[in-house]
Amino acid sequence: MKLTTQLAIAYPILQGPMLGVTTPAMVAAVANAGGLGSLPVGGLSPEKTHELILATKSKTDKPFAVNLFAHETSVSTSQADIDTMLNLLEAIYEDYGIPFSRPALTEFNFYSYQDQIEVLLHEQIPIVSFTFGLLEPAVVDQLKQQGSTLIGTATCVREAILLEESGVDIVVAQGVEAGGHRGTFLTDGPLPQVGSLSLLPQIVDAVSLPVIAAGGLFDARTVKAAFVLGAEGVQLGSFFLASDESAASEAYKTAVLSASDTSTALTRAFSGRWARGITNRFMEQVEQATLTIPYYTYQNSLTAGLRAYAQQNNIPELISLWAGQSASNSRRGKASDLLRSLIEQLDFDQEPV
Amino acid sequence: MKLTTQLAIAYPILQGPMLGVTTPAMVAAVANAGGLGSLPVGGLSPEKTHELILATKSKTDKPFAVNLFAHETSVSTSQADIDTMLNLLEAIYEDYGIPFSRPALTEFNFYSYQDQIEVLLHEQIPIVSFTFGLLEPAVVDQLKQQGSTLIGTATCVREAILLEESGVDIVVAQGVEAGGHRGTFLTDGPLPQVGSLSLLPQIVDAVSLPVIAAGGLFDARTVKAAFVLGAEGVQLGSFFLASDESAASEAYKTAVLSASDTSTALTRAFSGRWARGITNRFMEQVEQATLTIPYYTYQNSLTAGLRAYAQQNNIPELISLWAGQSASNSRRGKASDLLRSLIEQLDFDQEPV
Repeated sequence: MKLTTQLAIAYPILQGPMLGVTTPAMVAAVANAGGLGSLPVGGLSPEKTHELILATKSKTDKPFAVNLFAHETSVSTSQADIDTMLNLLEAIYEDYGIPFSRPALTEFNFYSYQDQIEVLLHEQIPIVSFTFGLLEPAVVDQLKQQGSTLIGTATCVREAILLEESGVDIVVAQGVEAGGHRGTFLTDGPLPQVGSLSLLPQIVDAVSLPVIAAGGLFDARTVKAAFVLGAEGVQLGSFFLASDESAASEAYKTAVLSASDTSTALTRAFSGRWARGITNRFMEQVEQATLTIPYYTYQNSLTAGLRAYAQQNNIPELISLWAGQSASNSRRGKASDLLRSLIEQLDFDQEPV
Repeated sequence: MKLTTQLAIAYPILQGPMLGVTTPAMVAAVANAGGLGSLPVGGLSPEKTHELILATKSKTDKPFAVNLFAHETSVSTSQADIDTMLNLLEAIYEDYGIPFSRPALTEFNFYSYQDQIEVLLHEQIPIVSFTFGLLEPAVVDQLKQQGSTLIGTATCVREAILLEESGVDIVVAQGVEAGGHRGTFLTDGPLPQVGSLSLLPQIVDAVSLPVIAAGGLFDARTVKAAFVLGAEGVQLGSFFLASDESAASEAYKTAVLSASDTSTALTRAFSGRWARGITNRFMEQVEQATLTIPYYTYQNSLTAGLRAYAQQNNIPELISLWAGQSASNSRRGKASDLLRSLIEQLDFDQEPV
């Protein structure tokens, strides 16, 4: 079955889920233009998840994906590491004259995907994508019984094989070029950092599922190359970063549009989990301090207040400027126009449904 | 002008120069099959350079490239750092029961490309490729006056632009997937680690020269993708690593063929310069020691004896197992057969000259 048939979309182009950037309006714009929008809800409460799904549904009657974080939530971290990091953060707050309030450990609320499944089932979400892990077998069964199509994220061949074995329908191959968090869930070795040109065909050869390319894609050339490499679909994130429907602050958009091919780096500074963003002062300060960075989601919670303040007040040096290696090629404009312009340059044999 | 016309070859496929692996026989086999062989001579004496060129010429009358190291040779390192590293190396020698002799600093001979230019001019080398820097203007003039075509190596857009400004004819865009040494020469920021899918089109857009893709290429799909991304030629290194004409030891070939997409990492452990190789015990030991690694070429000279011993005695844990992220897809066989098989799967409109 063709990927477009499988997902009931006109064009095999997905908008990458970007928590904090993607809005219901972005998801709906992509869906209405014939692509697959992806609504990121990782870590959000069931109520917030429901609210975002309803907001998206109010703007489109086309299918869209809801994207979950499927990581282990049992990871713990020491109070000493948290305290040391909080001292550093307090100093950074002070540098910028931002009022600091020390979060209590009990505030570290982060919902697991298990908490969100009921909402997804209730709303009959047709496509459920996820990253950071495998869904537990019972959840896979539940979602598939309802007819949901499952899309997992792999950053290396072994992860792709594990996803196939777990029963997913489609694999996203996330190359090292990709912006935002690495979807990596195998932690018995160094972080996989395989470039799309190498990763994609190796995953295509290793699994029998359709593979969606992610990482580095920004125009017709790169999308066509992904298809040549064996992808049946493509997922673009940074491509929509500067769009009108993006929740990225003006400082964030400006930083992305003035970046270069070497502006980004992988960092654990913001969330405790490896992610690619434009290098800024916060990343450098945390890395230079050579502290033990509390593991995700602790560090994510510790920096949440600072990141939110920086977004609201346009302080690019403190924002997690997630962006891929091709992000500077992003453009401003309506997400639907950006997508349509890309589609026009591709030779799809299928007309919009 | 087409790249094949410019280089007087039948197919726009280059064999990547792999010092210590590439032999005159490999270069000649590729040349005779219609590709462009590249003879690596970086750091070698003028006499050795001459000997290798003559050996290659004795096996082919087709053009081939000679590849130089164009790095700054003025970099110095402290005797204390060298002594500390030598202590670590002595311990590693002891671990493996290998007789250790402490090299004197005067033994750190490494010829600069300026020492080799006379030989290249004398032998009328038609294509001179280089990495690790820019050739000085006088050398560019000398080589161009003789009619040599110059190929420089870029790992980011800024390097490509500098190469174009320096007067080279062709740029190799080396993606992060590539095995062996990074060609990086801009040192005012972190090491560029841009994936081919992102780097290649961005370099194509930034310069008006023909661009050759390198990094991650291993089959017809990846080569076709590189052309779609705007490359006019492709350079494959690891593809020839396990060939009959490769000087890689059996232990090295076995390690490559049994690798995976995540087996390699970037390291400075062997040479002092960043290079991609299969992770092994030596890399881990040097990195875990967290010493100051003497800069290239000092570290390269310090580890030369150990690497040579390991190659001769098939000790994969001590060999610099340079390999790219797609290297496990390499095949054994004659280099000419490997290349011909690849060419047959591509749709070139040109017949062998």
